[in-house]
Amino acid sequence: MPKTIVVALGGNAILQESDVGTVQEQFQNIERACEHLIPIIRDGHRLIITHGNGPQVGNLLIQQEASQSIVPALPLDACVAMTQGQIGSMIQQALTNCLVSAGIQREVVTMVTHFSVDSTDPDFQEFSKPVGPFFDAETKAQHLANGHIVKEIRPGNDKPYRRTVPSPLPLRLLERNALKLLTESGSIVIAAGGGGIPLLRLDDDTFRTIEAVIDKDRAGEKLAESVIADIYMILTDVSAVSINYGTDKQEELSVVTASEGKRHFENGQFASGSMGPKVMSCLEFIEFGGDEAIIAGLESAADALAGLSGTHFVSDK
Amino acid sequence: MPKTIVVALGGNAILQESDVGTVQEQFQNIERACEHLIPIIRDGHRLIITHGNGPQVGNLLIQQEASQSIVPALPLDACVAMTQGQIGSMIQQALTNCLVSAGIQREVVTMVTHFSVDSTDPDFQEFSKPVGPFFDAETKAQHLANGHIVKEIRPGNDKPYRRTVPSPLPLRLLERNALKLLTESGSIVIAAGGGGIPLLRLDDDTFRTIEAVIDKDRAGEKLAESVIADIYMILTDVSAVSINYGTDKQEELSVVTASEGKRHFENGQFASGSMGPKVMSCLEFIEFGGDEAIIAGLESAADALAGLSGTHFVSDK
Repeated sequence: MPKTIVVALGGNAILQESDVGTVQEQFQNIERACEHLIPIIRDGHRLIITHGNGPQVGNLLIQQEASQSIVPALPLDACVAMTQGQIGSMIQQALTNCLVSAGIQREVVTMVTHFSVDSTDPDFQEFSKPVGPFFDAETKAQHLANGHIVKEIRPGNDKPYRRTVPSPLPLRLLERNALKLLTESGSIVIAAGGGGIPLLRLDDDTFRTIEAVIDKDRAGEKLAESVIADIYMILTDVSAVSINYGTDKQEELSVVTASEGKRHFENGQFASGSMGPKVMSCLEFIEFGGDEAIIAGLESAADALAGLSGTHFVSDK
Repeated sequence: MPKTIVVALGGNAILQESDVGTVQEQFQNIERACEHLIPIIRDGHRLIITHGNGPQVGNLLIQQEASQSIVPALPLDACVAMTQGQIGSMIQQALTNCLVSAGIQREVVTMVTHFSVDSTDPDFQEFSKPVGPFFDAETKAQHLANGHIVKEIRPGNDKPYRRTVPSPLPLRLLERNALKLLTESGSIVIAAGGGGIPLLRLDDDTFRTIEAVIDKDRAGEKLAESVIADIYMILTDVSAVSINYGTDKQEELSVVTASEGKRHFENGQFASGSMGPKVMSCLEFIEFGGDEAIIAGLESAADALAGLSGTHFVSDK
């Protein structure tokens, strides 16, 4: 039976640690990632692909600053929109080429994607998300003059500061109907890149841009809810989720029920900056009513879908 | 009877001559432009919106150059993809807000859009399209070192040079099926911004990126063909097309048959850099079998659709 699957590509699918960030490197990594998706597409599943944008939006922010005496700097939300176009186009091209080579006829499209967020979201007080490069005290003054919030992330370092922005929860995917229609018609859709573009919903139901970043794992989960996906699959650089990580009791999890997962989460088993939000978004998808959420290595995507690899979150019953 | 209409927004709908290029200016102009589309949408027509990206991609190219010692510069095609995300998101937000205020329920979406182009296109020898800023001899040397083609556009000036790229004809809209499906379902789709992202179709039917720019009027026409539109409407800063422009015999054209239009075109009535490609694309749309192509002022879009304003291209019979 064909299923509707939202696949979240980790950062390593686009740029590796050792990469400089050229467009050639990005294309090579993405082509490799797309190869791993072909067996899933060949089996007839409906696919929606989402992706991060950290290094790309970081570079764009550097360019906005470095050139602001000659070109007006664009705000963060516009930069996220730009990375959706850039990365979406790259994934679309690479996957289209993989499909042609595999003899599979499926149209791949990229949709610019927005989420509404609420002005009462507590993160509008917290500013929990660092964006862009680290910098020194002099650059800090420029940021403050631009009205940015700056936090000292690594005290004692030459460049201890970083700009931080709110990271509100995604509420409604604005392009929901179109996305669902396209997916059901057989198109493979790339959507919600970089967590989606956040828009503040005002009292009169209109929207306003806001400089914020939505967590990409939470955005992927909300995307999966929006298209009523069967499976939410996070492909990353580890083969599975572990408990007691880094100790001699480390244990890879294969099948995890919602209540087991919640218990591990509450016991602080998952680091807040890495596996925590991934596990949280999987548990939310099961709570929503999804069949299964998977965290697996990119290279074993097809095996993970077949239940042979990765960590599988399922409901208790 | 609801019609399928492709609307091409001119550059003035996004940035005016006197603007610096801030995102606030862009939003203000776009909101004004969207207001003029509301009466057309209220009448139930299916709408696809396309737009230029000249100033935005120009700014991006300046930023790529200015920052290339700290961040790898992205190629032109990636910059076009970025402007599709950025400008598409702005138009989508502004139009969504206008629709909410007008009490009209229609989903607006933005699709990243690619056209295939042919490697035998004569413009791959000509390099007819200047992009980015003018520059001096020193910067020229850098461009040549980057493998760019540079032409002297305004001899005698301090900054006489400009980078030029090929401007091949658009052949196939890769997202055609998805676009048609969405339009027929009632979504308003923003597509083919900046002429679309050109992709070279190779002998094995795969695609490769290419640093080139497709003329936005020709792209809009190919977009109109691809969704089998009834009407292709170019909204610009003049109220109609004129012949004998700038003479005491200047005459605004109201209804023009295909053969009349072709005759005027061949008589050199339309400037190659401005009205020429617009008229040519209108004539092509009529030749394709479209009902009507219109060139009109942005402010009188609804009047033009009602036949009360603008220049209307129709078939001979």
